[in-house]
Amino acid sequence: MSIQINPGKLNTATLLISCPDRPGLVAKIANFIYTNGGNIIHADQHTDFSTGLFLNRVEWQLDGFNLSREAIATAFYAIAKPWNAQWQIHFSDIIPRIAIWVTKQNHCLLDLLWRWQAKELKAEIPLIVSNHTALEAIAHQFAIDFHHLPIDQENKLSQEQKQLELLEKYQIDLVILAKYMQILSPSLVASFPNIINIHHSFLPAFPGAKPYHRAYDRGVKIIGATAHYVTEDLDQGPIIEQEVVHVSHRDNVSDLIRKGKDLEKLVLSRAVRWHLDHRVLVYGNRTVVF
Amino acid sequence: MSIQINPGKLNTATLLISCPDRPGLVAKIANFIYTNGGNIIHADQHTDFSTGLFLNRVEWQLDGFNLSREAIATAFYAIAKPWNAQWQIHFSDIIPRIAIWVTKQNHCLLDLLWRWQAKELKAEIPLIVSNHTALEAIAHQFAIDFHHLPIDQENKLSQEQKQLELLEKYQIDLVILAKYMQILSPSLVASFPNIINIHHSFLPAFPGAKPYHRAYDRGVKIIGATAHYVTEDLDQGPIIEQEVVHVSHRDNVSDLIRKGKDLEKLVLSRAVRWHLDHRVLVYGNRTVVF
Amino acid sequence: MSIQINPGKLNTATLLISCPDRPGLVAKIANFIYTNGGNIIHADQHTDFSTGLFLNRVEWQLDGFNLSREAIATAFYAIAKPWNAQWQIHFSDIIPRIAIWVTKQNHCLLDLLWRWQAKELKAEIPLIVSNHTALEAIAHQFAIDFHHLPIDQENKLSQEQKQLELLEKYQIDLVILAKYMQILSPSLVASFPNIINIHHSFLPAFPGAKPYHRAYDRGVKIIGATAHYVTEDLDQGPIIEQEVVHVSHRDNVSDLIRKGKDLEKLVLSRAVRWHLDHRVLVYGNRTVVF
Amino acid sequence: MSIQINPGKLNTATLLISCPDRPGLVAKIANFIYTNGGNIIHADQHTDFSTGLFLNRVEWQLDGFNLSREAIATAFYAIAKPWNAQWQIHFSDIIPRIAIWVTKQNHCLLDLLWRWQAKELKAEIPLIVSNHTALEAIAHQFAIDFHHLPIDQENKLSQEQKQLELLEKYQIDLVILAKYMQILSPSLVASFPNIINIHHSFLPAFPGAKPYHRAYDRGVKIIGATAHYVTEDLDQGPIIEQEVVHVSHRDNVSDLIRKGKDLEKLVLSRAVRWHLDHRVLVYGNRTVVF
Repeated sequence: MSIQINPGKLNTATLLISCPDRPGLVAKIANFIYTNGGNIIHADQHTDFSTGLFLNRVEWQLDGFNLSREAIATAFYAIAKPWNAQWQIHFSDIIPRIAIWVTKQNHCLLDLLWRWQAKELKAEIPLIVSNHTALEAIAHQFAIDFHHLPIDQENKLSQEQKQLELLEKYQIDLVILAKYMQILSPSLVASFPNIINIHHSFLPAFPGAKPYHRAYDRGVKIIGATAHYVTEDLDQGPIIEQEVVHVSHRDNVSDLIRKGKDLEKLVLSRAVRWHLDHRVLVYGNRTVVF
Repeated sequence: MSIQINPGKLNTATLLISCPDRPGLVAKIANFIYTNGGNIIHADQHTDFSTGLFLNRVEWQLDGFNLSREAIATAFYAIAKPWNAQWQIHFSDIIPRIAIWVTKQNHCLLDLLWRWQAKELKAEIPLIVSNHTALEAIAHQFAIDFHHLPIDQENKLSQEQKQLELLEKYQIDLVILAKYMQILSPSLVASFPNIINIHHSFLPAFPGAKPYHRAYDRGVKIIGATAHYVTEDLDQGPIIEQEVVHVSHRDNVSDLIRKGKDLEKLVLSRAVRWHLDHRVLVYGNRTVVF
Repeated sequence: MSIQINPGKLNTATLLISCPDRPGLVAKIANFIYTNGGNIIHADQHTDFSTGLFLNRVEWQLDGFNLSREAIATAFYAIAKPWNAQWQIHFSDIIPRIAIWVTKQNHCLLDLLWRWQAKELKAEIPLIVSNHTALEAIAHQFAIDFHHLPIDQENKLSQEQKQLELLEKYQIDLVILAKYMQILSPSLVASFPNIINIHHSFLPAFPGAKPYHRAYDRGVKIIGATAHYVTEDLDQGPIIEQEVVHVSHRDNVSDLIRKGKDLEKLVLSRAVRWHLDHRVLVYGNRTVVF
Repeated sequence: MSIQINPGKLNTATLLISCPDRPGLVAKIANFIYTNGGNIIHADQHTDFSTGLFLNRVEWQLDGFNLSREAIATAFYAIAKPWNAQWQIHFSDIIPRIAIWVTKQNHCLLDLLWRWQAKELKAEIPLIVSNHTALEAIAHQFAIDFHHLPIDQENKLSQEQKQLELLEKYQIDLVILAKYMQILSPSLVASFPNIINIHHSFLPAFPGAKPYHRAYDRGVKIIGATAHYVTEDLDQGPIIEQEVVHVSHRDNVSDLIRKGKDLEKLVLSRAVRWHLDHRVLVYGNRTVVF
């Protein structure tokens, strides 16, 4: 019989950091935590030898930690300054706020909401945005605000402005494109960098429209799905997770779509979960998933 | 306790057929076999509704069959003539003859030869052809004739002519490109249609050169391998089998190459095995694997 | 561009048959269909050489078929009588009726209901039965009758009698145990043979209670789920489908449970779908999934 | 284009340690390395909250490290003494020596030897031991000493004594049971703890003899293989790696055996590779694979 003491009950801080590698980085980070009374519960390091980059994730318990949250950032800023580092510190009791953007398909939305209700996703979901009204009832069912912002060739930029205002108003930390069938303009992506998209192919195969139809026409024996951060370039952003399933000659396009929906749900929810757990570190056009 | 009566001990005939769908095809094929005293041991049918095509594989025991092998083809020709069909009949005691073409990498070659020794591949392998001499010792070890035909920009067509002569001389039924790092000219492919290649990516991603390097640079979370029939267009032929493996930020290019080698061996050997069992039917640019 | 003509639009009949192998079975079945004007759209045969058993699934279009539905059974009865066969004939417009039995966990129930709404499962679901009331609201939300039949050591047999009456009343064809945490008595199983259960391990490992805890304690690197038909012997019935997922030292029991839920949903829904498509044939304690 | 600087070219030391968790462990280990001039290139930590255990793997470059190899152990002994820790330190230029024990099947042996030749396994393989002579020719082919020690009911303990003497004489660090079809006696296991076995099932299903036959008889839809450390209890030792493959009604016992051989090769070689990289830490009856 195994007893699980849930470490999540105690508040923790998580540091994600990347910088050029040099001796002593692990020691200095660990000393900062230890000398201030923290206990490290997770520590993962990766060195990318092709770029000489040190990448690290450390999580420690805040119970008994001597520094206030404000003081942590100030103190670590002084430590990391000489390293030319990029870093973030997250606190486990600051719950990220998510907006889900959808069009007409409901499977990814329902899957995310069900996992959210089942406490698999540690987040608040105050906002659903759509360019259609097909999924408004689901938003109501889960008591989430729904905003309908139809997009056409004329109004795209002005509607995106409204989308950004909603993100501001609802204090959103992460946007999930859960089958949102619109291409975001570069200015939107530049204004709000934390966007995860699910694409229904194993990228880089079949970027863009109708990947299942193209997979069928190519006669592939596997289909896939890819969750990635959104960048200016369509379906070119850093990949967080991919998964595939075998298909055969018995599967027509509608079977591929059906099988693919299961992949999309799994892959998107994994990527979102890892992001919310602050396990994903982006560098260049790639990710480390600690 | 289960007792296995090996059906392979008895000689069988296998029909592979595709034609426009119409009522009665299954009945007429089954009647032809039954009325001549055959017992069907495997029968698989697929109808491609997008093209209206009937595709079928039937295998029956020849023990007690009334028709001679020559008579089978003549009789079936008369039956199938009105159907506008493409069909082949294979006999289980006619062992296909394979030529393996390689360059310098030995993993696919060794894997095929071990499986052949372990009786996993029902074929004869009398010929290995290479544009290098690196693998000549392996050919000798397995007592297989080895022919060295170096290729450069000047001699490609003349060397391919010699390759075709070898295929003729050794009465080869199937060529396996087991990491043969040369692009075949259209005339060679037109002259010898039964060629299986292993490509080290999940096509259509990363066709052409250095797919593992490009997969690393794209930051993918899965890599794959694809076995396909060779056509004029590089890495565009009908796919027989694909498989993938997960990779992570810990895997650098050399890890991808190492993991990929296991995929390449598995995928290529499966495709070859299915081809030798006459389970693969090509139509358009796709395959049915019965 | 590929065009899909949905064959499901036309009504079909599906024959599932098993009997001792003998020459002519395929021909006689195909002739029966062809001479009565049917067009076979799917045909799959399997011969189990260890038992000498012929197993077959044939589906044909009823449009233009000369025999009435009643006459089909009568006619085929005469044909199959000498074969000592077990067979069933299903019509695609007779929609099976499902009862889902649950306890407190909602993930399999919700997954089945979503797939049903998304038209992935060709069935009617008029009845949900539970020994608790926790999931009653979900039944109401989907406008499905909910019956609460609490079970304790005293009332088990009498409550099972009521369950059987409900199956009778609602004309149920298939019971799905979607995390129903009660062991059925042999008499119930004998009275109603079409029951599919989802067990949260890769059987035969970890039958019975708390498989995820036991998997954790054993330190396995994969966990699984198994959908099987229910027989008298707990978790010993014919297996329809199994799937696994990798776990690591990072996964504690609650992670195994979370990852396992995704497996359970996938495996159960696949098994149900194949059953509803009349693709599953049971013989001995095993299944053929055509 | 990505450039890989192979870190393996520089000598490294690897510490594997487990002890009751307490604050400051990461800091003290990192400080020990840093203050002596080492650069950490890999660091992974796991805390098992169910047992309160801290588990860690740290690898650092020895180039420029101030302490001699002898001094490292002495110094770290003093540091770790108060922690009640179990730890090992390995140096990358001390190449482990492997003995492979086999019976008659050659697939795992050949696979290991091929990977060894391809530099996938960083080890020396000076010794092959077998209770049969079937694989002696392979040993000669790879220029490895072969010792034939037939086992029967009478001579088991005396032959095991000879096996231990061979391990001593050849200075073996790791024994691989590559389809060695004998059960080791508890005294042998007690005398030589570093033994990896490949079992041809997904344990804990089908321990002991003839797992493929029993898997076939149970009608499973997946088969597996498990690599584990050998303990006194047959097939009960700490699991290092497991993998599965799908099977269907088409696969008879000989197909299961054939498919299983590919699994066995993959799983065993992964486990051996991770062991040789000092990535496996055993605690209780489980492993952490860093």
